[in-house]
Amino acid sequence: MQQALSHLMLIEPLAFEPSLERAIEATRETAWDRFRAPESRAEAALVFAMFYALEGGKALRAFLVIESARLHGQTMTAAAQAALAVECIHAYSLIHDDLPCMDDDDLRRGKPTVHRKWNEHTAVLAGDALQAKAFELLATPELGGNALELVRGLAVASGHEGMVGGQMMDIAAETAEAPLTLEQIKAVQHGKTGALIRWSASAGAVMAGASSAELETYGEALGLAFQIADDILDVEGSAAETGKAVGKDADAGKATFVSLLGLDAAKRQASDLVEQACEALSSYGADAECLREAARFVIARRK
Amino acid sequence: MQQALSHLMLIEPLAFEPSLERAIEATRETAWDRFRAPESRAEAALVFAMFYALEGGKALRAFLVIESARLHGQTMTAAAQAALAVECIHAYSLIHDDLPCMDDDDLRRGKPTVHRKWNEHTAVLAGDALQAKAFELLATPELGGNALELVRGLAVASGHEGMVGGQMMDIAAETAEAPLTLEQIKAVQHGKTGALIRWSASAGAVMAGASSAELETYGEALGLAFQIADDILDVEGSAAETGKAVGKDADAGKATFVSLLGLDAAKRQASDLVEQACEALSSYGADAECLREAARFVIARRK
Repeated sequence: MQQALSHLMLIEPLAFEPSLERAIEATRETAWDRFRAPESRAEAALVFAMFYALEGGKALRAFLVIESARLHGQTMTAAAQAALAVECIHAYSLIHDDLPCMDDDDLRRGKPTVHRKWNEHTAVLAGDALQAKAFELLATPELGGNALELVRGLAVASGHEGMVGGQMMDIAAETAEAPLTLEQIKAVQHGKTGALIRWSASAGAVMAGASSAELETYGEALGLAFQIADDILDVEGSAAETGKAVGKDADAGKATFVSLLGLDAAKRQASDLVEQACEALSSYGADAECLREAARFVIARRK
Repeated sequence: MQQALSHLMLIEPLAFEPSLERAIEATRETAWDRFRAPESRAEAALVFAMFYALEGGKALRAFLVIESARLHGQTMTAAAQAALAVECIHAYSLIHDDLPCMDDDDLRRGKPTVHRKWNEHTAVLAGDALQAKAFELLATPELGGNALELVRGLAVASGHEGMVGGQMMDIAAETAEAPLTLEQIKAVQHGKTGALIRWSASAGAVMAGASSAELETYGEALGLAFQIADDILDVEGSAAETGKAVGKDADAGKATFVSLLGLDAAKRQASDLVEQACEALSSYGADAECLREAARFVIARRK
């Protein structure tokens, strides 16, 4: 099993911090350890699709978990397990969002989407199994006495009050009579992408049983900046760079931060949010520099 | 919110035990309490579809959780929360299994399936949100010091090693060159329906930190009997009684316990398994009579 999958890179490192590579390595090793040898050909196919979907992302959420855990004196072993958990949730959400009944995308992370490479039922089931895997990974005493709080938080962040609720609003907007207002697209973002980013940024504090208020403020601003940057990339980026289709929002007449604010104002707002994110971490001093770098990277990235 | 949903019966009681009605009532009250007032029309639609899918089932898994919790001296409040959790997982799996890319069913629990009543994206997302809800419900200190073990067990039971893996095998069988052997359909059942039933039957022992070996043996035999009974109903039942399409397996030329064993031998095996299930509980004495009744009911049911 390990051999069959060893050519896969679980997640491709972001290009801005050497410590991230160690984090990615630890997360990848965790992944190998946490899958048993499949007992049937069907289980092997399912697990292969799960790894395929995990591979090649920016690993922003994993990075946030690992850095916030380091800030709060947690071990890399525990942090990598929680980091992999949130990447499982993120990967499952991408598989399901790409399905023909939702965004109907052919390309993700520079590769065919799971339903294009295999078929729709494999895509639905690999997503379902990745969600279960996330909670299995978190439900370990290795994560300490606050593991249950991590589980509860991730469940709320990814469910009807969070990520799935946001995706539902996003799809409803496509058939709504009027395009969404700025407040409404903020609400979509708050759930669809913001909830997991906030959970990731605050995970280390939760693990340590410390206050997570500052990291949540950071995660809130970072998540919004990330979405605005995504909307900008949809206008300015290329499919070759981003590894997914671009220009889709404008083609669909969909309201985005760019269509509502204009390109320049959207860039200014993203930049202001990054500043807010960095300021929120002032009490952590120089220790949080890596998280500040990540925030700056989020709006500078080309993919 | 509560008003809008108050006409829904969360789960329809089985007809064999008065104590079950109390259990169902407690589970239903738990359900009302555990959903916040939706903050958008899209979230309300999502939550409505989630409740719709939960409604009207046999609640066998909820019943097993509640009875095994009672056997181990747990409170009804805690048990109902875990019972609702496993019903959320079961309901999500039915929604996704019914999708056009899997079983493509129009009827479930006597009502249109979620994707027929709404649409496919609502079905995928309501299923996803129900899975998250299950883990949210379990991740509560009310479930005691072993809540994390409940989470881990449910995640494994519902993921690639359990329910989802079994569904993947079941679908793979449809396009396989040869029909499945008896060993192979047992492996499908062990994952697809057995894993959740075993988890449910042993949940009370896990909550109490006691040995769950006997309840797992009971759950194992009960789960297999349940599947054989399902295959028998697919041959002998009517859509009006079962609330879902019947005769599908034979029409599809699919190997089932009935096609491999013949109707009479299948009935005998189901009956033997029920006896084994009842015997596994001998050390619990008369306290476990309700679970024994449930096992007998499973093969006597008409839906």
